[in-house]
Amino acid sequence: MENVSVEGVRSAAIESGIRYASRLDLVLFELAEKTKTAGVFTLNAFCAAPVMVARRHIAAMSPRYLLINTGNANAGTGVQGERDAIACCEAVARECGVNAEQVLPFSTGVIGELLPVDKIVGALPAAHKALAVDQIAAAARGIMTTDTRPKMVSRQVMVEGHQVTISGIAKGSGMIKPNMATMLSYIFTDARLTQSTLDRLLREQVARSFNRITVDGDTSTNDCCMLVATGKGSLVITDIDSDASKQFQFELNAVFEQLATGLIRDAEGASKFITIEVNEGASEHECLAVAYAVAESPLVKTAFYASDPNWGRILAAIGRAGLDDLDIESVTLALGDILLVSKGAVDAGYSESAGQAEMDKEEIRVCINLGRGKASTRVWTSDLSNEYVRINADYRS
Amino acid sequence: MENVSVEGVRSAAIESGIRYASRLDLVLFELAEKTKTAGVFTLNAFCAAPVMVARRHIAAMSPRYLLINTGNANAGTGVQGERDAIACCEAVARECGVNAEQVLPFSTGVIGELLPVDKIVGALPAAHKALAVDQIAAAARGIMTTDTRPKMVSRQVMVEGHQVTISGIAKGSGMIKPNMATMLSYIFTDARLTQSTLDRLLREQVARSFNRITVDGDTSTNDCCMLVATGKGSLVITDIDSDASKQFQFELNAVFEQLATGLIRDAEGASKFITIEVNEGASEHECLAVAYAVAESPLVKTAFYASDPNWGRILAAIGRAGLDDLDIESVTLALGDILLVSKGAVDAGYSESAGQAEMDKEEIRVCINLGRGKASTRVWTSDLSNEYVRINADYRS
Repeated sequence: MENVSVEGVRSAAIESGIRYASRLDLVLFELAEKTKTAGVFTLNAFCAAPVMVARRHIAAMSPRYLLINTGNANAGTGVQGERDAIACCEAVARECGVNAEQVLPFSTGVIGELLPVDKIVGALPAAHKALAVDQIAAAARGIMTTDTRPKMVSRQVMVEGHQVTISGIAKGSGMIKPNMATMLSYIFTDARLTQSTLDRLLREQVARSFNRITVDGDTSTNDCCMLVATGKGSLVITDIDSDASKQFQFELNAVFEQLATGLIRDAEGASKFITIEVNEGASEHECLAVAYAVAESPLVKTAFYASDPNWGRILAAIGRAGLDDLDIESVTLALGDILLVSKGAVDAGYSESAGQAEMDKEEIRVCINLGRGKASTRVWTSDLSNEYVRINADYRS
Repeated sequence: MENVSVEGVRSAAIESGIRYASRLDLVLFELAEKTKTAGVFTLNAFCAAPVMVARRHIAAMSPRYLLINTGNANAGTGVQGERDAIACCEAVARECGVNAEQVLPFSTGVIGELLPVDKIVGALPAAHKALAVDQIAAAARGIMTTDTRPKMVSRQVMVEGHQVTISGIAKGSGMIKPNMATMLSYIFTDARLTQSTLDRLLREQVARSFNRITVDGDTSTNDCCMLVATGKGSLVITDIDSDASKQFQFELNAVFEQLATGLIRDAEGASKFITIEVNEGASEHECLAVAYAVAESPLVKTAFYASDPNWGRILAAIGRAGLDDLDIESVTLALGDILLVSKGAVDAGYSESAGQAEMDKEEIRVCINLGRGKASTRVWTSDLSNEYVRINADYRS
């Protein structure tokens, strides 16, 4: 894992004993003055207290500090939860000499328990002191919960003669079907962009990365994704349609996609990484409906776990996705380059051994052509294993 | 299990060796002349060949024979699948001296393999010969696949001085989220009803029984539910709003509900039977959205499996159910009589030990009040266990 610092961003990850001893559980990011930050937050109606507070703060002022704790989601905690999130922001503000509204709070962990504010506030001086430009990899570890490994992606490239750096981290391996954003992800760049461009790029990038993954269809209460531009580098994007902007977006997309697929590769209990492509739909909306029906079918997911080329289960999922007047004669289904189904039945050229060979792979590509339009989409998912059940039956028990 | 025969219905269940030796796998029902039959079929676009044929036949003529095989779903089999289903109907017609359109074919089992027509046709004379009035319990066993026990309900009651009998059977334990009907269910009565009344009663009954259960959210390709009225008894329903009709409907509802919940009690790998009640919604539609979001959440289902009163996962599922402007302050959540959540957070009177005691039960009632209207609904579901994953990873492997 590369560890490329972004000028204008300092990080710290420390142990504050929120839930477990000897575990990095508190991360602080410091953003240089004039940094611009864009954020997207969960659409879950029961969003966590820190999400409500972060939404208000980012609307009021430009953030200077991001405070993230694991071990406790501060969700389902009502009015007291909001007070606790604000108390943490106020403590950072006092410690670092900024306004409390310039601090964004983030929490991840168990839902429904009050945040141990004293532990967090007590650890802030140490976090403040530990801030350094080379600590982003530690921050990637510091935001993990059931993740088995940190997710971090860095790119340092030349765009029209200007060196630009993009570094991002993400966490999350269960309760993953982001809707506007994923559990927690922070992407930093030293490029200079206007606030409106940054907001737009974040939404576009999230739409084709974090909003295209699912582990279990369970949208979290705490999802947040932040895109931070310090403007400390020499690359300045003024026109979103310029060549420089397009090249920057290409690099940005690589970071978002790697982080999003990184969550799936580390999904709870996952033994397979599955890409589901749906093409030739009448709209992207219906392509997504088909893709998620397949990606979230427990029967399809257990067949993947068993490496069973059980295309009947995939067809059944396509068939119940709710498409009007789907002509099953027009649908084709392939695993990688192996055509399984055409004209509503198994393809004449298909052999079980060829299907089995594709299913035995750790990375599986499911290609569905609906034959009724030009829209397409792609989602990433994992299989459903005994390990997933074990993890989620044991967690918080 | 009571075994009450319905006058005008003869049944047979035999071993034809479709997939396994020494297993009841072929069921034949004979319906007396003038019997009226109503049917509802899966809405899955990839519906099986027998479903397509049965839909055409029931629209053309009054059924006299129902032929059901297990071990092979004859789904995803294209044009050949339809030919095979018709060939079976023609063979029954020849054997029993009726028109092929008076025979309805049903199949359940593995998707995507051609039906072994020869085995079925070869076994028909034996099935015909075995027809008897007291074989409905054998038929309940004969339609099982991964079911661990047969599902059969009989009621024999007096309605305004007339004895009426209702006997039904059902099968299905996975790929269960019926949409218009469940995997396979047949309910017989000796009452006399008009065709339009019978059609209407079937739809109403299915809407609150089989269409309110889910194991894994996977709507099957082969779902069918048939309601058969032989008219051989003395109860005649002419006015659907009469007292006799209402009493008959009450009894009918008891049979449908017991069969539907019987499928959940025998759901694949299930260790719990869970009722999810959603009240005070603005519409039944949004109550259903919430109920299914909770019932199908892998995280909620694994928490049930672990007997963990993890109300945070239930709140998260409610929150992502897509309700516009849900005011979380108005939502309450209870397990049985124990109030867990009010005003967006854990209720002041809640104790973990009380929640744990409810969760330890084998039958769990989740009560969600949305506080925004008068609509309500109820669905039944099961937990997600290691056994579910094992069964579905092993099946057809």
